[in-house]
Order: sequence, then structure tokens, then C-alpha cells
Amino acid sequence: MSEPLPYGSVIGILGGGQLGRMLSVAASRLGYKTHIFEPGANPPAGDVAHAVTTAPYEDEAALRAFAEAVDVITYEFENVPTSALDLLESLKPIRPSRKALAVSQDRLVEKAFLNDLGLATAPFAAVDDIEDLKEAIAEIGCPAILKTRRFGYDGKGQVVINAPEEAAAALEDMKGAPAILEGFVEFFKEISVIGARAEDGAISCYDPGQNKHEGGILRTTLVPAAITDSQRTDAVLLAAKILNKLDYVGVMGVELFVTRDALIVNEIAPRVHNSGHWTQAGCAVDQFEQHIRAVTGWPLGDGGRHCDVEMENLIGDDMDRVPRLTKLARYQIHLYGKAEVKPGRKMGHVNHIL
Amino acid sequence: MSEPLPYGSVIGILGGGQLGRMLSVAASRLGYKTHIFEPGANPPAGDVAHAVTTAPYEDEAALRAFAEAVDVITYEFENVPTSALDLLESLKPIRPSRKALAVSQDRLVEKAFLNDLGLATAPFAAVDDIEDLKEAIAEIGCPAILKTRRFGYDGKGQVVINAPEEAAAALEDMKGAPAILEGFVEFFKEISVIGARAEDGAISCYDPGQNKHEGGILRTTLVPAAITDSQRTDAVLLAAKILNKLDYVGVMGVELFVTRDALIVNEIAPRVHNSGHWTQAGCAVDQFEQHIRAVTGWPLGDGGRHCDVEMENLIGDDMDRVPRLTKLARYQIHLYGKAEVKPGRKMGHVNHIL
Repeated sequence: MSEPLPYGSVIGILGGGQLGRMLSVAASRLGYKTHIFEPGANPPAGDVAHAVTTAPYEDEAALRAFAEAVDVITYEFENVPTSALDLLESLKPIRPSRKALAVSQDRLVEKAFLNDLGLATAPFAAVDDIEDLKEAIAEIGCPAILKTRRFGYDGKGQVVINAPEEAAAALEDMKGAPAILEGFVEFFKEISVIGARAEDGAISCYDPGQNKHEGGILRTTLVPAAITDSQRTDAVLLAAKILNKLDYVGVMGVELFVTRDALIVNEIAPRVHNSGHWTQAGCAVDQFEQHIRAVTGWPLGDGGRHCDVEMENLIGDDMDRVPRLTKLARYQIHLYGKAEVKPGRKMGHVNHIL
Repeated sequence: MSEPLPYGSVIGILGGGQLGRMLSVAASRLGYKTHIFEPGANPPAGDVAHAVTTAPYEDEAALRAFAEAVDVITYEFENVPTSALDLLESLKPIRPSRKALAVSQDRLVEKAFLNDLGLATAPFAAVDDIEDLKEAIAEIGCPAILKTRRFGYDGKGQVVINAPEEAAAALEDMKGAPAILEGFVEFFKEISVIGARAEDGAISCYDPGQNKHEGGILRTTLVPAAITDSQRTDAVLLAAKILNKLDYVGVMGVELFVTRDALIVNEIAPRVHNSGHWTQAGCAVDQFEQHIRAVTGWPLGDGGRHCDVEMENLIGDDMDRVPRLTKLARYQIHLYGKAEVKPGRKMGHVNHIL
């Protein structure tokens, strides 16, 4: 694509959650329509999309009809089955490319990729059986975290191992899935960089945000993060290195631990990221529009931060706080339209303009 | 309504243009769905709505089904036929109420209403035939503007009369429609107040914006307007007076002329208003969300301005400027997804954060 996708084109989005919802809204601002592909009924993104396909990722006919109806395909969800991607890729361009997905779908592949790039990660080892795990514990030490290599998010598919004798029980929790043991990183702060790369190779990164997690789920992101100028520069350069190596087109979230000596990459997400929601209140062009710009071939927009923001997720019963939150000055509310409130479910977020 | 409409409720919107489009997006942020009723096919608002009914306002069955499917009805377009409103009102609440529509749909009724409230307007007189017009010209003088009493917007249905001998030709332009002659107001500036009133009577007004029109169409709005503090206060109080008198629930646009001696009300629009689009970039809660909050029974949100903004409409061929505009810093683009570019058609707008 040397010209941007024409005005009125349709962007196909795999996944119909809140990220797809906010991508749809951003697409509308640039005059595009969206078509959501999502196995679950009544997806949040469907409320603001031009069209919705409700079908499993195994439904070849539905995938073909979807590809036929759209001009470019992107995703808000990185665990789309390979078979579906193989088929879609043969029919319409997918952005970001399969390469980024292949790396980020597997924690082991991801960490090896990052180390090959010269970037620091937590110590890790592949774990396929109890022998592997015992060896890994001996090498990495305790406490450590055993995680499934694939399909984990928001703290799911993870178990902490505090002593070698907990190994067997922890491995059982993996339910036979290939796993990875990761050492603990002693960090001062968690930050993340939301970076974007356009088709022409241009890169734009938002100001790093400082994250707080609770129970494995992001609770708040504050910008600016309390880091030094050189840490800020390092974080942005590091994100750019990853984006370039993957020939990436779109927005990526890079989670980092700030330790005494270095920035350690925790994980990368090949999509818009929860820790970038603050950009809706703090920037002329938010992460969702930036992603749409990249995948449709527009130049990246101005991601400069024009105010300080604290983003807070509304999780489960936090919904009860909404009536009070609606009354507060300088608070922007974003609810996701999910039908049911469940513990640990992300129901919305607020951006507090500081 | 003492409690807000439950999360997940459906807001019916009469009219599917760009205002309905941006109202839909705002509704999604509060967890609501929207259902658009619009006679024209493929309305801009349809791209981001939960459901769309394409039917004329005369289709009673379609109106009934629409009312059945929604929890509250609002509008982005004030010229909805009375018969349709009569039917809908018997089935579901309409906000803002019919009273506001009745006043604003007819320029003569509107001016009389404003004068009764003690607010200044341009001199005016009803014109039903050539005798009326001659009398009106004698009283008001020339130049003056002859306008249809109903269904005019963006300079349509208006003709300037520079001399009494132009009366007959001007009246012919009205095509037999009841008309009103308005005297010219010599003004320094045009400003507008976007005001909101909640069901509990609370009022919130955005900082007045300063407007420039070209060929009867809004070109730019700049906030803050270059007016004195007392003019700002007067403008806001005046808007509040109108909102209260109408028991208004929702957002209203009040256009004012600033003259040497006074603020003259040009017209009121019982809906979100083009001159309030800057709030998308300058406020935590924009005019679209403020309207949704009001009509669903939420408290009004924080409409404080946290930065200066210039809004510029993209009209007709201005679309050719979009590639350049996407590259500018601190510019936010909003395109409306209209299929065809036509001279004088509003295709989008940009908010420049100053």
C-alpha cells in the first residue's frame, strides 16, 4: 500500500472485546467502517461496528465471507488459532503481520527473540515435564513463576513456586500444556511503552506510563512515569528495536520492569494495550487511532502528551463506583457494554486528567 | 426517571447524520447501545450504532417497532414531522421534550418566545404574502433577510433583500412557505453557548466559542472566544434562562451576536451543535456525552475546558486537505463517513489543540 486505504473501506477486526470496540470508534473518526469477527455472542465491539460475524475461528466459510467483506484485517486478540490466520492471510492482508503474532503467542519464543535482540528478560527455561522443571528450579532458584507458554493473560495460567517441593503440584496446574519457568525480577517500577510503526518504517512512541498491577491484572497507569530521562529514552529505543526487527505495522504494547541496573522486558503485546488507554485523554491521536492509521497506511499521528493522566481500570464490582465517578471533575469514563459483571472482568476504565 | 437508565439500555436517535454518529460513540462510552431511525440509506451514524431503521417518518409500523426497541428517544435533527413525534411520544419518552422542538422548528415562534423571556433578537415580522412583506420592509428597513419559518439550515431557505423592489422576487424564492423577515444585526462577533440541563434541573454550560460563518455555513469555532468576562457571564445566564423556561433535558446550542450594547440571540438548536465539536478535544466530557448523560438521567459531567481549541469544519472539497491534515501536530480529525463529497456538505471537522 503506498496510498492509504480509501475512505469508506472496511477494516476487519479479529476479536470483539473492549479493544475492538475502541478500535471501531477510532476507525469511524477516520471515515472507515469495521467488521468484527468474534466467536462469542453480542461482543462489546459489535455495538459500534458496521458489521459483526458471530462464528468460531474453525468456521472456514465464515472466515472466507469475512475476508471477502473487508479490505484489511487486524486483531485485538493475539490468540487467534493458526489455521484461521493461515486461511485469512491467503485472502487479505493481515496487519500486524503473522511474525509478530508467532513471537508473542509463545512466551518461550518471545523471550528467546528478545534475548537475541540483546534485550534483557527474566531468566527462563522451557518446562515440558517434571525433570525439566526440577532442573529449571535448580538453575533459576525460588521463588519463580511457572506459566503456560501460550494463551495466558491477566494472570491466568500462572502459578508461583516458592520451594522446590511445590514443583509437582505446580506442573499439574499447567494441565499438560507446554510451560516456561521464569525467575522473579526485583523491580522498582513497572512501566510500559506503547509504540507504533507505520508501513514506511516511521515509528512513534507514546510517553511511557507507570503501571500498577493487582492480582495479575492492570489496576492503574500513570503518565508521566516517575523515571529518569535516560530511562525514558532507553525504553523508547528498546521498543523501536522490537518494532523494527518484526517489520511491525500497527501499535504494540511493551511491558518493562525498571530495576536498579536495567530495563527488563516483561512481555510484548502485538496490539493496542490496556496501559495505553490514557492516550484517549492525553493525546490528540490516541493509541486506537494510531493503530488504525498504521494498518490503513496513513502517516502516524501526533502522539505527544498534552496533559498528565491517570488511567484506572474498572474491574468487576468497581462498576458500583460508576455513579460516584460520573460526578467527578476531570474524569472521563469508558464503559465496555459487557452484559455481565464478573470478578476480575474488565468492565471499563476512567481517565483522570491531572 | 430518578435512577439513570440501566447500563446496556438502548437510546433511540431520530436522524442518522454526523451528530447521531458522534452521539452513538458517546453513548457507547457510557455502556449504552443506540438505534438510529433515518429515512436515508446508509446513514453515517449507522456505522457505529447497534441497530438502524431505514424508513420514512411517515411509516407508522416502522416508528412503532423503533419505539418498541428503545428505552428513550432523542434526536439529532429538529425537523422531524409532527405526526411521527405524536406517535413516538405516546410510546416512549422523548428528550428533549416536544416543547423545545415546537419552539425551535419555527423561526417566528422562536423569536417570540425569546422576546417574551426578555432576550433580544433581531427585529422581525411574519410574512405570509406580499402585503405583509412590504409592510415588514417599511418597518424593519433594508437590507433584511427573508427566511422560511421552518426547515431552514446552513443558509438554505434564505434570501437577502437589499431594496424594497426586490420584495416580490424574494417572496417567490420562499415557494409559498410561511416566512419571516429579519432585520440585519450589526455585530462584532458571533459566539455560541452549548448548554446542558439535566432532569433534576442542574445546568452546565461550556465556555462560549467564537464562530466564523462562510456562505451561511459554520467554518470555524475558537475557544476561548474574545469576549469580556461579563459578556461570558451574560451569555451563560441567558442560555440557562432558555433551558429553564423550556424544562429542557439535553444539550442545546444557542447562537449569539455580540453587538456594542448587547447579546442578541440569533437562533437556538435543541440538540448537540456544530459549534460544540471543540469539546471533543478540550473537555473531559464532550457535548455528545453530556447530551447522553442528560437524556439517560445521569448527572451532568465536567464540561470545564482544559485547553484552547480551534475547530474547523471540513466542507466539500476540504476533504482533499485530509492527507496533509493527518500529518499535523495537535490536530484531531473526525470524518463522518459520508459516501459522496458535495459542495457545501459537511464531511468532517478537525480540532486543533492550541
